[in-house]
Amino acid sequence: MGLDDRVRCCPDGLMTDRRHNVRVLDATIRDGGCCNAWQFSHDFVGRTFDALLASGVDIMEIGYLTSPGVYDTKSVGPWRFCDEDDLARVARPSRMKLAAMVDVGRIRPEDLRPAGDSLISVIRVATYGPDIAEAVDLLHAARELGYETFCNVMAVTECTPQEVDSFLAALHDSRVENVAVVDSFGALYPHQLRYLIRKYKNWLRPEQHVGVHLHNNQQQAFANTIAAIEEGVDFVDGTIFGMGRGAGNCPLELLLMYLDDPRHDVRPILAMLEEYDVLRDELRWGYQAPYAITGWLNRHPREAIARVQTHRGRAVEAFWEQLTKDAELPRNHRPQLHPES
Amino acid sequence: MGLDDRVRCCPDGLMTDRRHNVRVLDATIRDGGCCNAWQFSHDFVGRTFDALLASGVDIMEIGYLTSPGVYDTKSVGPWRFCDEDDLARVARPSRMKLAAMVDVGRIRPEDLRPAGDSLISVIRVATYGPDIAEAVDLLHAARELGYETFCNVMAVTECTPQEVDSFLAALHDSRVENVAVVDSFGALYPHQLRYLIRKYKNWLRPEQHVGVHLHNNQQQAFANTIAAIEEGVDFVDGTIFGMGRGAGNCPLELLLMYLDDPRHDVRPILAMLEEYDVLRDELRWGYQAPYAITGWLNRHPREAIARVQTHRGRAVEAFWEQLTKDAELPRNHRPQLHPES
Repeated sequence: MGLDDRVRCCPDGLMTDRRHNVRVLDATIRDGGCCNAWQFSHDFVGRTFDALLASGVDIMEIGYLTSPGVYDTKSVGPWRFCDEDDLARVARPSRMKLAAMVDVGRIRPEDLRPAGDSLISVIRVATYGPDIAEAVDLLHAARELGYETFCNVMAVTECTPQEVDSFLAALHDSRVENVAVVDSFGALYPHQLRYLIRKYKNWLRPEQHVGVHLHNNQQQAFANTIAAIEEGVDFVDGTIFGMGRGAGNCPLELLLMYLDDPRHDVRPILAMLEEYDVLRDELRWGYQAPYAITGWLNRHPREAIARVQTHRGRAVEAFWEQLTKDAELPRNHRPQLHPES
Repeated sequence: MGLDDRVRCCPDGLMTDRRHNVRVLDATIRDGGCCNAWQFSHDFVGRTFDALLASGVDIMEIGYLTSPGVYDTKSVGPWRFCDEDDLARVARPSRMKLAAMVDVGRIRPEDLRPAGDSLISVIRVATYGPDIAEAVDLLHAARELGYETFCNVMAVTECTPQEVDSFLAALHDSRVENVAVVDSFGALYPHQLRYLIRKYKNWLRPEQHVGVHLHNNQQQAFANTIAAIEEGVDFVDGTIFGMGRGAGNCPLELLLMYLDDPRHDVRPILAMLEEYDVLRDELRWGYQAPYAITGWLNRHPREAIARVQTHRGRAVEAFWEQLTKDAELPRNHRPQLHPES
């Protein structure tokens, strides 16, 4: 071996756990929109669409479909509704699919138009475990209308094992094609996420795809995404610069660099980061200790978000006391796995 | 099973990979000091000492020992030197050990005083692989003087496997007690770090302890720390609020919450976060895409740090082009493991 053949010690050559052809779903406008009530300009969303298309991302989740009357259109932006007129101003038919999320209870199935009449071709139904029957009805309605379907069962870390079994059984029996493990609270460490991915795969039919939607409260979103890819998930979610409520999401730019897939080009995303950096200055997503605390406590981040709005990252010990004083936490108060007797 | 006995689905109860009695080393003043040239006030360092002591941290790395004349004392603060007079103003003998780092080439062994005459009881020698012989001389001098010794071989991701074997053989034959896997560039993903930990453990004597010192360029510092704990390391490094040059380090508060060790109490650290949040506003450590790029490219972050100073997180695509244009990177340009033939 000549000196020029010498290679470095990092064990990628033999040990890579990256996989190519993992589907990448960008949720910047939909989930990042939780930071600014979906009030992105058409110009900004259009340039984000162009960047995502050029980067080789598979699916752009561009917002929510919401039935009229659920939100005051004065207080939320157009991407909470995704009217076709708005979509047509920013997107065009392309290799990249456009997805919209629907919340169980915030849309009537009859308000969905046929996929053939929409720029949207993917519907993601967001539900909580107990509402799974209603979610399946919505998923079936969407499939009948020609959409590819995803189901995001939120806040799985709040469910009992029996509740998880129950919604997975319902999804197994449904026609839904893709199911995400959703770490709504940023509560999961990689070994826990791996366990849930195996559980989802075990319960679902082999042709149903499992993926992840992860939050960064404990700085685990990207690491958990890597763990999920190692576990063989079929799709992963990211957002540009990690944009998202509170601590945010898995940063798309880190994910694309990691995947190192010839289908991808991270440069169009890097070229957008300047504008997202300006947005972050204004909207202030990203790591703060209150998010770490709610993540660790397996709680919704709403209290942490409110706290950071008023106190930034300050007086954190008082926040800790407030959240833990009534909790009667055992020493190891993290959610426990019940032996599945 | 009654309703009150119901537990949540997170698999901690059966699957925890936390370990108690991992030694925690706080490097806030030493490594965080790289952000501000160690110009912390005595009052601030004293309150950080008190918080770390109250939190149950095992070792506080309070700065560097440096021979006179190496630095202009006008341009760097007292924690680059750790004179005993300065130490006595902020610290006192306690359960928590005080550590100082020494750089090979920036200290003469004869400038070390006996451990019995110092508040410092731990010496960490920072070296590059090729300087291992000089590092071992310094480590032996420190042991002779009564110190506990650590060796940090920096930038291991730049070494060939043969170079790693070589410095590990030298450390095996030495009297050093603790060796850290050091991810200077924040280049490692968990599976790579796990490989290196196994390699270090395999080469070193059973009574030599292995730990980690990790950077957050790709948002992996805490996740890699968790992976290291799963691999059975004996000590881990953190800094308050992740303070450190560029993207920073593993945040101590996340680490203490994760470990959930009865020896620890995260609250004194949380009570300090307000002041560290103010410092972060000024010094701006934390995630920015240029750090992700140098991490991914397995390069020293100096160019990214300079870039963020002048451009914040902006014009990132140009930075990418600048770093990759001469590199003739193969598609998968990440460092490769040479088959150890």
